[in-house]
Amino acid sequence: MKIIKSIKELRTVLGGIQGKTGLVPTMGALHKGHLSLIERCVSENDFNIVSIFVNPTQFGPKEDFDKYPRTLEADVKMCEQADVDVVFAPSSSEMYKNTMDTTLVCPPYAAVDKLCGKSRVGHFDGVATVVSKLFNITSCDRAYFGKKDAQQLFIIKKMVDDLNFNVEIISCDIVREEDGLAMSSRNTYLTSQNRTEALKLSKALKCVKDLYAKGENSVKALTDAALSVMQGLDVEYFEICDLNTFHEADNIIKQDVENIALAAVNIYQGENSKAENRVRLIDNIEL
Amino acid sequence: MKIIKSIKELRTVLGGIQGKTGLVPTMGALHKGHLSLIERCVSENDFNIVSIFVNPTQFGPKEDFDKYPRTLEADVKMCEQADVDVVFAPSSSEMYKNTMDTTLVCPPYAAVDKLCGKSRVGHFDGVATVVSKLFNITSCDRAYFGKKDAQQLFIIKKMVDDLNFNVEIISCDIVREEDGLAMSSRNTYLTSQNRTEALKLSKALKCVKDLYAKGENSVKALTDAALSVMQGLDVEYFEICDLNTFHEADNIIKQDVENIALAAVNIYQGENSKAENRVRLIDNIEL
Repeated sequence: MKIIKSIKELRTVLGGIQGKTGLVPTMGALHKGHLSLIERCVSENDFNIVSIFVNPTQFGPKEDFDKYPRTLEADVKMCEQADVDVVFAPSSSEMYKNTMDTTLVCPPYAAVDKLCGKSRVGHFDGVATVVSKLFNITSCDRAYFGKKDAQQLFIIKKMVDDLNFNVEIISCDIVREEDGLAMSSRNTYLTSQNRTEALKLSKALKCVKDLYAKGENSVKALTDAALSVMQGLDVEYFEICDLNTFHEADNIIKQDVENIALAAVNIYQGENSKAENRVRLIDNIEL
Repeated sequence: MKIIKSIKELRTVLGGIQGKTGLVPTMGALHKGHLSLIERCVSENDFNIVSIFVNPTQFGPKEDFDKYPRTLEADVKMCEQADVDVVFAPSSSEMYKNTMDTTLVCPPYAAVDKLCGKSRVGHFDGVATVVSKLFNITSCDRAYFGKKDAQQLFIIKKMVDDLNFNVEIISCDIVREEDGLAMSSRNTYLTSQNRTEALKLSKALKCVKDLYAKGENSVKALTDAALSVMQGLDVEYFEICDLNTFHEADNIIKQDVENIALAAVNIYQGENSKAENRVRLIDNIEL
């Protein structure tokens, strides 16, 4: 396995390969969720690239860019064991020579200005820009994304469609801890007390799914149930959407479309609800 | 030669080819300027595509999208004679399924908000978006652009650099009529009286180049000379820039950088200076 930091060197390597190329774009701090993407990528493609890049343009000024976990050595080991061909780990200056210039801008269609896009202004523009750069750098045929970032996945699929990228987007199921907590690089921020609180998030979503399966189709009733399970948490949003449009569900959920329940919560390390103590977690469940 | 209107069909054809692919992106109404790009493309690549698409997203609401010349039959003939492999002529609905959604936004760096970008707000975003779509659709290795659209060329090179497109941009010299008028699809709008007036544009630029060659390096003196040649024309802009940054030249032009003089004029069909009678012409000359 090669570890490559330069775009030029990566292109030289790619110039010599044949068959299908798969890409797993990550910000590192790899966990079992990433591993499931990597394993699927390796099983489906002839040449496999995992990119590791903590992308500054998708973090807001008060977000956790500086403290985001960086565990390159362990990440490289995981990739090697999974039979990856190349770990592409560029520096910020390699990716953004002259600060940010040309940017992809996701328009204010249904999916962008809501949910995570509401509190993280510009986040999805940063994601779309870096993902399009990675597609261009790797000339990949397939790219693998986790369903945990459901809104990101929707926006990337839309971008691929709008800009005619010749890349197949493969979405992979959420991987959870045994107790239900969705895998996330940000879980390493959680104290043991936080960890217990955080469980309410997946429990609330599971509760909504169970109620819906039993015939409850009122958004208000399902929202009340979710909020009741998440009592004591700082809930940023809970919403039920049409999975294929990201439009908010009607008051009575339509049966003939696929629906998804999404939530974001903030959990605080220590006593103070200060921004610097905040751990932001997201999760979702298809109904 | 194939004429292809569907993205899917083009990709099928491209899937079977080997070697380098060249693209000449055009809006049709092909003239000798385009022909010079096409001939160079054909001489340098194994497979050659000319795209013909009058891109709605780069026209402003009061511009000439509707009346822009469309001469597909003649264009196809010219391409066939030049040994092009594919003319790609998609419809607007093939290119923009759901109106405009994800868009490339050129940031307000030196080159965008000035010159043509000042009067044509959003024009270069539309250009960048459609060119990136065409790059993705054709997976071309090289793309050919004319130096007549010098600002466009600069912005496309910047976009390729910023978003890491793996496409080599080849810039080709301006082709002129014998009397000096730069070739343009919009020249067909000109009445014979307009045609005489229009000559002042290239004459002014030639005059500036000659004066500069003789040692005149004051921007004010050169601008006065240009405006004096263009007397009677509605001059939208005349500016001398650093060719490599598109920053405005200092009052006394630096000798150690490449400089370019650019101008845009409006010429009116008939007596009235109305928007619908306006023919907008641009030209430039490297000093």
